[in-house]
Amino acid sequence: MRSDTATTWPMTDFAATRRLFDLPEGVIYMDGNSLGPLPRAAVRRLDRAAREEWGGMLITAWNRAGWMDMPRRLGDRIARLIGAPEGSVVVGDTLSIRLWQALASALDLNPGRRVILSDSGNFPSDLYMAQGLIRTLGRGHDLRVVAPDEVESAIDDSVAVLMLTEVDYRTGRLHDMAALSAQAKAAGALTVWDLAHSAGAIPVDVTGAGADFAVGCTYKYLNGGPGAPAFIHVAPRHLPNVTPALAGWLGHRAPFDFDPDYRPADGIDRMRVGTPPVLQMAALDAALDVWEGVDMADLRQRSMELSERFVSAVLAGCPDLALASPEDPTARGSQVSFRHPQGYAVMQALIEAGVVGDFRAPDLLRFGITPLYLSEGDIDRAAEKLAEIIGSGSWNDPRFHRRAAVT
Amino acid sequence: MRSDTATTWPMTDFAATRRLFDLPEGVIYMDGNSLGPLPRAAVRRLDRAAREEWGGMLITAWNRAGWMDMPRRLGDRIARLIGAPEGSVVVGDTLSIRLWQALASALDLNPGRRVILSDSGNFPSDLYMAQGLIRTLGRGHDLRVVAPDEVESAIDDSVAVLMLTEVDYRTGRLHDMAALSAQAKAAGALTVWDLAHSAGAIPVDVTGAGADFAVGCTYKYLNGGPGAPAFIHVAPRHLPNVTPALAGWLGHRAPFDFDPDYRPADGIDRMRVGTPPVLQMAALDAALDVWEGVDMADLRQRSMELSERFVSAVLAGCPDLALASPEDPTARGSQVSFRHPQGYAVMQALIEAGVVGDFRAPDLLRFGITPLYLSEGDIDRAAEKLAEIIGSGSWNDPRFHRRAAVT
Repeated sequence: MRSDTATTWPMTDFAATRRLFDLPEGVIYMDGNSLGPLPRAAVRRLDRAAREEWGGMLITAWNRAGWMDMPRRLGDRIARLIGAPEGSVVVGDTLSIRLWQALASALDLNPGRRVILSDSGNFPSDLYMAQGLIRTLGRGHDLRVVAPDEVESAIDDSVAVLMLTEVDYRTGRLHDMAALSAQAKAAGALTVWDLAHSAGAIPVDVTGAGADFAVGCTYKYLNGGPGAPAFIHVAPRHLPNVTPALAGWLGHRAPFDFDPDYRPADGIDRMRVGTPPVLQMAALDAALDVWEGVDMADLRQRSMELSERFVSAVLAGCPDLALASPEDPTARGSQVSFRHPQGYAVMQALIEAGVVGDFRAPDLLRFGITPLYLSEGDIDRAAEKLAEIIGSGSWNDPRFHRRAAVT
Repeated sequence: MRSDTATTWPMTDFAATRRLFDLPEGVIYMDGNSLGPLPRAAVRRLDRAAREEWGGMLITAWNRAGWMDMPRRLGDRIARLIGAPEGSVVVGDTLSIRLWQALASALDLNPGRRVILSDSGNFPSDLYMAQGLIRTLGRGHDLRVVAPDEVESAIDDSVAVLMLTEVDYRTGRLHDMAALSAQAKAAGALTVWDLAHSAGAIPVDVTGAGADFAVGCTYKYLNGGPGAPAFIHVAPRHLPNVTPALAGWLGHRAPFDFDPDYRPADGIDRMRVGTPPVLQMAALDAALDVWEGVDMADLRQRSMELSERFVSAVLAGCPDLALASPEDPTARGSQVSFRHPQGYAVMQALIEAGVVGDFRAPDLLRFGITPLYLSEGDIDRAAEKLAEIIGSGSWNDPRFHRRAAVT
């Protein structure tokens, strides 16, 4: 990401970024919003981490290969993509754990209130983690879940924490992070933003928006690989006051003193918990290299162009499909969805034809629009394939109706 | 691990297991109790997971490559090494998180009591996680930390949970899991056993011992790689009554229903939280292959022989060193420690000489005894090198006194 973009637009060479990925021949991959594809450099980086670092340096690699600093170093690389200052983001654990940490900390900082406000467009895991936390706390907190367009009117002075996912995982509907954060702040509430479908998908400015906590995953638009670690951002103004609920060894001020009492580290390091996943971080590190040449404003422009092109072509070619995403591209993240009553079978037929999107119950065909590796030609061919399948009714074949464990 | 060991002992070919590891030329590695070395097969397995599965199958690998089932499948592989039944162990997250889950669940099952009993030989992270949980719960729980040899007398009817690490990370002192678990049970307390230095180090029988919960890591004696995921075992009798505090998406009964309310999965799957670390699990899977030909009784016998050989040679050759581990090999795990007032510098000199152990503050030289890849010759040479360093005083060189970040 570069910030000096005023003079020569576009600065990002998307044909060049495409060459950094290893995509199977003949596949148009539109599921990068679920699992980003393999950056070529990740294979080499993983091999190096295994052979040279783990195999060759053994335990000394914690120092010599910089393993111990990776959660913080990778955090700083992600910070630049979400508008966070250096030293305010750390990597490790899963998104669920990071969400739990953020929510527990936010509730702790707002002890006089009992309401967690969220919306029905949030990913279920965030709601589950909140439910588990509420039960664990046993202090009568209330998870209030409203429709996405009712969030604004539901923010009142009972709300302790506003917990939202910026981009709806099903429709791509985009919340106004700055406006809602400002409103929450005015009402005395803290904010926890889940950036699962934002980081690497759209420009994000957690600092400008005044967000208190933000969390996200790195296996979607950041292409960190299956099970890549999550990240957490805590606004620097809160860090000194955050007492970690998950008080882990590596969040201690001096882990190698083996002090029997927990004393949190300074700054974002206190959000570290246990031993970080070094091999996953190696792959993620390689994946983040791709972003060095990418301007987020260019990415957003290109994402909107490609998604508009796809929506137009699909709606023209597939009269059975209805757009489930907002029509206005500025009101969406970097994905679009369509409804079809037999969406599952249609998507299986499409995948067999080499266009990989995914299905979300009950009836959504979901497509990630990822300019790093999708071209106009890909978009046009994907829309053509979909129109062929809908037009021919080939999805009626019984083999497309058998459900797999993961959909 | 094989159970039909009655007739032909030893059944395990330790020269063969040695060839399964890729160890640097000239290095004698005695820090496998901190980070196990690289199993040769892990490199190939990681490459396959990256290229063929992530790169080639993309999102479909969750089904086609079996990623979704790996936490449970690897859990069953580990179950055999710790005496747990199939379906009672699941892999993922870090040991700190798993400890937290176990402790939170155990407290939840014993709501009328407020004392968590542990000992000063526990790894600090376990104490920190307990402190964080107590603060989060806010219900006046008390973490009572006694000396290891006072645990037995401290178990009384105020204890909700007995939380211990079976093998002391500094001295290798081994608790009697069966006796303490029985005593805890008789007093109405539940047990949480941390097997960090037990799994793959000594025979463990959580079922025979009547343990309620057990957790462990896989990057030490199980050689799963840096940041390899942890595991949790819940005794099947408790599973139906465990309501996960970390209520994650993948612990839900039907994740792909995207139900807004958490309903725990049947059995051990409810302890799953977020997206598991697929690349780390691939390396761990390869590492667990090594155990297919290993009988744990053989391993224990060999570990005691090698450790006795090492202790005798070191005490004979290094009059400045004092044994910090129990003298009786059956009272230790698979590691031995010695005290030296300048232990840090001595260990740095030893590492430079090609013998890798580690240092634990304030004065401990720690050595992992790992029969899978250490021979009598390694043990003899390691003791000789240590005697040379102590005898010559070469550790006095200032370069051995500079502290690294991780020790």
